[in-house]
Amino acid sequence: MIADEDIQATYRSAGFCGAFELGRRPAVVVVDLSRGFTDPACPLGSEATAEVERTRGVLDAARSSGVLVTFTTIAYDEAARRTTAWLRKVPSLRELAVGSPWVEIDPRLGRLSGEEVVVKTGASAFFGTSLLPLLVAAQTDCVIVMGATTSGCVRSSVVDSVQCGFPTFIVTDCCVDRAAGPHAANLFDMTAKYADPLTAEEAVSHLERLRSSRDPHR
Amino acid sequence: MIADEDIQATYRSAGFCGAFELGRRPAVVVVDLSRGFTDPACPLGSEATAEVERTRGVLDAARSSGVLVTFTTIAYDEAARRTTAWLRKVPSLRELAVGSPWVEIDPRLGRLSGEEVVVKTGASAFFGTSLLPLLVAAQTDCVIVMGATTSGCVRSSVVDSVQCGFPTFIVTDCCVDRAAGPHAANLFDMTAKYADPLTAEEAVSHLERLRSSRDPHR
Amino acid sequence: MIADEDIQATYRSAGFCGAFELGRRPAVVVVDLSRGFTDPACPLGSEATAEVERTRGVLDAARSSGVLVTFTTIAYDEAARRTTAWLRKVPSLRELAVGSPWVEIDPRLGRLSGEEVVVKTGASAFFGTSLLPLLVAAQTDCVIVMGATTSGCVRSSVVDSVQCGFPTFIVTDCCVDRAAGPHAANLFDMTAKYADPLTAEEAVSHLERLRSSRDPHR
Amino acid sequence: MIADEDIQATYRSAGFCGAFELGRRPAVVVVDLSRGFTDPACPLGSEATAEVERTRGVLDAARSSGVLVTFTTIAYDEAARRTTAWLRKVPSLRELAVGSPWVEIDPRLGRLSGEEVVVKTGASAFFGTSLLPLLVAAQTDCVIVMGATTSGCVRSSVVDSVQCGFPTFIVTDCCVDRAAGPHAANLFDMTAKYADPLTAEEAVSHLERLRSSRDPHR
Repeated sequence: MIADEDIQATYRSAGFCGAFELGRRPAVVVVDLSRGFTDPACPLGSEATAEVERTRGVLDAARSSGVLVTFTTIAYDEAARRTTAWLRKVPSLRELAVGSPWVEIDPRLGRLSGEEVVVKTGASAFFGTSLLPLLVAAQTDCVIVMGATTSGCVRSSVVDSVQCGFPTFIVTDCCVDRAAGPHAANLFDMTAKYADPLTAEEAVSHLERLRSSRDPHR
Repeated sequence: MIADEDIQATYRSAGFCGAFELGRRPAVVVVDLSRGFTDPACPLGSEATAEVERTRGVLDAARSSGVLVTFTTIAYDEAARRTTAWLRKVPSLRELAVGSPWVEIDPRLGRLSGEEVVVKTGASAFFGTSLLPLLVAAQTDCVIVMGATTSGCVRSSVVDSVQCGFPTFIVTDCCVDRAAGPHAANLFDMTAKYADPLTAEEAVSHLERLRSSRDPHR
Repeated sequence: MIADEDIQATYRSAGFCGAFELGRRPAVVVVDLSRGFTDPACPLGSEATAEVERTRGVLDAARSSGVLVTFTTIAYDEAARRTTAWLRKVPSLRELAVGSPWVEIDPRLGRLSGEEVVVKTGASAFFGTSLLPLLVAAQTDCVIVMGATTSGCVRSSVVDSVQCGFPTFIVTDCCVDRAAGPHAANLFDMTAKYADPLTAEEAVSHLERLRSSRDPHR
Repeated sequence: MIADEDIQATYRSAGFCGAFELGRRPAVVVVDLSRGFTDPACPLGSEATAEVERTRGVLDAARSSGVLVTFTTIAYDEAARRTTAWLRKVPSLRELAVGSPWVEIDPRLGRLSGEEVVVKTGASAFFGTSLLPLLVAAQTDCVIVMGATTSGCVRSSVVDSVQCGFPTFIVTDCCVDRAAGPHAANLFDMTAKYADPLTAEEAVSHLERLRSSRDPHR
């Protein structure tokens, strides 16, 4: 079940490990690409220009095919900052205060006003949020995940996505982390156990194919 | 199991139906006492002056005993307004737009800045929100619910509270509804099946007793 | 928003209150039609022969159209019996012991071995169960609910269904309760706020129409 | 925030990274130490004798102090086997059929009849299960996790535990995995971000201290 990434690529091109089918009603979930994680000036941030640009490419393909695009951001108000157990473990998350620029979605992603920003106080995009009802109401048939950090919120969002019943895909070169080791280890776990890997190019190509074959889903 | 309210009062004073014990670490959850529900000028609103005043009394007792106070409000942004299934059933909820005065907590309740406002898009205070982690982190040992509407969000919040494992209490004379029949029918169901009833006076008296016997919990 | 049942019928036939569309991939969720609720010999049970027979008719239509059929049952093992908060409020639920005949699905419903029985310890079919992933994985586009009791587990399941994002329908003459007042009051609330009503006949007719127009979904 | 294990040990002994306090009402959650994961004869299993023996030591200390002990096991019935999305990704999980010996808790752990076995179909002990209500009803003030596999169900259970609001601990030498790399990488992530590490010896010592200072909690 567990194999290194080269082996996995080999398997995949041979038709193995391609557990899930990309559907006709995907939803793109962009996890925590807020300024706090994409601007190295924030203690939580990393240099992520290449990943942000690739993500923008995927989003533009999704938009022109009428595919649902959703963002998440972590943000704590005063009360949540005092009570959230996770903050005792990762105090630097306190930087992500409601109203702070760090919680805004990275402007390079060109978020449109109709694209939901799901605010969360935990790691998973699904935990204690309204993401699931939104995906269900849109009759989503698969979920495509990307964002930051690979070893944190992306990982837990991917696990919840497949637990919720969605065929789940991870765009590996649109995932950001602050350290190479955990980034690789978590891509490995995710693609071995929870999600099928896509490159940004593959994601764009699938999303563009949908354009000709369907009407925008809303 | 099911009895009319008089019978239930009789049972309760005889020691029946008093399923739960009020604990030493209660949390007070005020459901949807936003202007949208307490101002008759809003299509969703009702005249609720007496209930709001009684609720303020309960909150003041909670505050001076250091008891956790939490509010909920329903609010939809543009994307949620377009996708939320529930809005197709109850279109008037669309009035509750993020940023609108209707989603503000009724100022007569004197909310303090450290008191969390849990924003929700569903009926239950627990569904898709961070209320549960907040209650768990505060080591809550019972939940006291009040608010609007008795037959809607209060009912579903009470059911979720007991499902989550909390001994649950409903302050019957701090519950607001737009119609007397559903109000009574739902108090009946809730007190028969899910929660023990308290009057505002009983709630205040319990909360004040905590003041002498404990330190504020945070 | 709230109207009595006659008014609602009028509105519905005039095209009002028909919030949701019956989709092509419905799931039928039968709540708690276990012997414990359908056999008057159990303290929790009611005489429910007519409702069970109508439910069987709906299920047979679903089966011949390849529509997903799912049952729920409440069952407590020794540990759950000791810890579940809800049991302190409704001690008679303790009758529903794992392995007891009361927790078996009523045999008159003819459950097939491939039809899931979701075991729950709370009121809602969705709370703490694997029902949601099952519905998502089957790409369910609407949920049709029936069962027992109208004022208990059916009500809370319907609320969770619409909160999860599913267009939700309640088969009113396939709902069972032990008392007429709460039955009517909860049908009223549900159809006013959370679900569109169907008769068994309407449900059968919709499910049969699917047969000619689609392949079984699995 | 991220450091290798030696550095973390150094930090911890210096009082850093000791985010959480072990409380007086812990719950011990043993993830998936069923025969399927602890018997190398099962395709999913590993040699885990040492970890199982250490876990037994922790459980015995918990039992003699009256601390809540809970197990999880993965088990699929016929319907779940057909519908669960995760099984398309990890087909070997199909071995874990309801009623099969693989789903039984490893007998070397000496499970008592009052100790709950939470049955799950997903990775996390909390997802779609009744674990949370059980912990809340027992007024749990911290969660101690161990089991299999480190890089799978243990990881996702730990993330959910802290997301639910519980100070969370991981007994590192009671965690089992089928491969050393993912085991280490996931212990690293978990202890950096979600839980404080304990050795079995530290866990036993804390649990034994509780015996003298408190009455069993139920």
